[in-house]
Amino acid sequence: MGDAAGIGPEIIAKAYREQPELMQGCFVVGDVATLRRAAQIVASAGRPALPVAVIAEANHVHGVPPHCIPVVQIGTGAEPVAWGKVSAVAGALAGRCVEWAADAALNGHVCALVTAPLHKEALAAAGEPYNQFPGHTELLQARAAHFLGKPVSEVPVRMMLANDELRTVLVSIHVSLRKAIEAVTFDNVLQTIRIAHHALLPVLARAPRIAVAGLNPHAGERGLFGLEEREVIQPAIEAACAQGMQVSGPWAPDTVFMRARNRPGVVPEFDVVIAMYHDQGLIPVKYLGVEKGVNVTLGLPLVRTSPDHGTAFDIAGTGRADPSSLVEAVRMAKALAREAGHLPERRPKASEPLGGQPRKEH
Amino acid sequence: MGDAAGIGPEIIAKAYREQPELMQGCFVVGDVATLRRAAQIVASAGRPALPVAVIAEANHVHGVPPHCIPVVQIGTGAEPVAWGKVSAVAGALAGRCVEWAADAALNGHVCALVTAPLHKEALAAAGEPYNQFPGHTELLQARAAHFLGKPVSEVPVRMMLANDELRTVLVSIHVSLRKAIEAVTFDNVLQTIRIAHHALLPVLARAPRIAVAGLNPHAGERGLFGLEEREVIQPAIEAACAQGMQVSGPWAPDTVFMRARNRPGVVPEFDVVIAMYHDQGLIPVKYLGVEKGVNVTLGLPLVRTSPDHGTAFDIAGTGRADPSSLVEAVRMAKALAREAGHLPERRPKASEPLGGQPRKEH
Repeated sequence: MGDAAGIGPEIIAKAYREQPELMQGCFVVGDVATLRRAAQIVASAGRPALPVAVIAEANHVHGVPPHCIPVVQIGTGAEPVAWGKVSAVAGALAGRCVEWAADAALNGHVCALVTAPLHKEALAAAGEPYNQFPGHTELLQARAAHFLGKPVSEVPVRMMLANDELRTVLVSIHVSLRKAIEAVTFDNVLQTIRIAHHALLPVLARAPRIAVAGLNPHAGERGLFGLEEREVIQPAIEAACAQGMQVSGPWAPDTVFMRARNRPGVVPEFDVVIAMYHDQGLIPVKYLGVEKGVNVTLGLPLVRTSPDHGTAFDIAGTGRADPSSLVEAVRMAKALAREAGHLPERRPKASEPLGGQPRKEH
Repeated sequence: MGDAAGIGPEIIAKAYREQPELMQGCFVVGDVATLRRAAQIVASAGRPALPVAVIAEANHVHGVPPHCIPVVQIGTGAEPVAWGKVSAVAGALAGRCVEWAADAALNGHVCALVTAPLHKEALAAAGEPYNQFPGHTELLQARAAHFLGKPVSEVPVRMMLANDELRTVLVSIHVSLRKAIEAVTFDNVLQTIRIAHHALLPVLARAPRIAVAGLNPHAGERGLFGLEEREVIQPAIEAACAQGMQVSGPWAPDTVFMRARNRPGVVPEFDVVIAMYHDQGLIPVKYLGVEKGVNVTLGLPLVRTSPDHGTAFDIAGTGRADPSSLVEAVRMAKALAREAGHLPERRPKASEPLGGQPRKEH
């Protein structure tokens, strides 16, 4: 459900209303009263609020009638928190929902997780244990490490951003640009390549063509504008190739995304671009519009996607939130779960994009 | 003409063949034999090579018949150099062409300069004085400073990249990402804002709405991911606002370009984005396709545009070079010259984009 004070419940209610077929088999891990309030906000003249049905466990989702929002209740079910305000109660509830859902996925009771936005400050205000996690990813990573009996450092994860046109996997995310440069190490770059390779191999049913971006302008222009390409990135690419992966680069950052872009009439040169830092990858993914971007956490022993936006406290409760990215996140989660063998349905063809949607040119 | 061994002469010949109206009033500063060779390469069955006419000075361009390439001959007119090879002769010739053209512009004999690509190594091989200049921009800057009787440091320039959708002005260009971070200083950011403001004011006939990108992910997320936004960028924005410019930011780099994007049905929030480093600005400009990007040098006492690509030695002489970016560069140079009062023709409306081309939605 994400943070109850944000737009999470509203975009969930909109997804159920606008995409009933897609949402079949999905349920919300959250709070019934909060979802009922969201369903009311989404309702309009002639389109009454969708009913919310409480279910006790994952399997019961199949017994819920259509056009109904199934919810597993977490917490006491007290009054919903105020919209748009940082709340320790909402932070703790959101954290507990993530834990429940992670455990359900790790134990095979659900085939994928789609996470609505958390609010960092609410999570911090919630106190132990949630205040030690900057967000979903770290929470899920800790839960997965615990489940696997490994230290967190042995469950490396990477963020992939994807839309209809482009996939990019990031070496680092929420650190300053200075620290991001320090994070461009042989180990980190090779690990990112490896995680991307293993994540996309089953999706494409072949080795993904991985492009690695340089760090510096023109990928260093033969050492004139920086040495990281020669000293770090190139050796990591060679190591990955030696391990049988199909990797090229380091490519000039300003054109590699364009070359990987999947658009009508053009066969992209690459299936995914490894970006050296947050904005290098996010600028091109978001340039064509934020509403279609989906965030996929790679490296976890479970499928997890999320919309590519935050809690938007400024518009929470107004009914103006756009569910597009959440809808795409659900679509992609289903496609990935199918590939992972959790969903028995149709198998997308190798030429289909990650999300399993038809490409425009096909 | 750019480097004679590169694609410059070929894309010039193509521009004259494909855009005769646009090229009216334009002439080449270069080498007749090289242009004749280029015209031959561009010729095809049923479309003979355009004739090349030697002119002695700028004014004679108006006496040249249509469908003819007018050339001011620089140098001895010896055999053209080999395609696709670094040549000291080509480097020196290209350097001399730039000097001739810069002086012609500074002295008011031509209203704008469009520069075809140079080759850095050829320029270096050419020896004094050309080997001290990494490229056109520095050569033009030195020539302008000399003309104005100022030190080069008092003729600060910035690169603007523009296409139909987006304009971005860069704080720094061809340095490593580490050095680019060091170049994000109060003075450099404020100077970039000022140069962008003064360059776009006459084009838009109003104060441009300038967005300043942050340096770090999420523009530092209130100091969590870096302090440059608070300590450097924000004060520079405030100083610019205090001087009457219309400036906002620092904005999250991953969404600010999207918000400035001019596309059908959407009114962009900003007229230009100040990018903190090369790839931050170039990735979004190039994402939709490299062929339409134009490079504009701001800060010089002359109008100068150039295509957004290099000499492409790998395809030089094959006839496969794409003149689109050069054509756009000529179009934009004419629009800017018109705004600067050098060309008496029509005045674009304030709502028109920089290049004076009609927007799709109008």
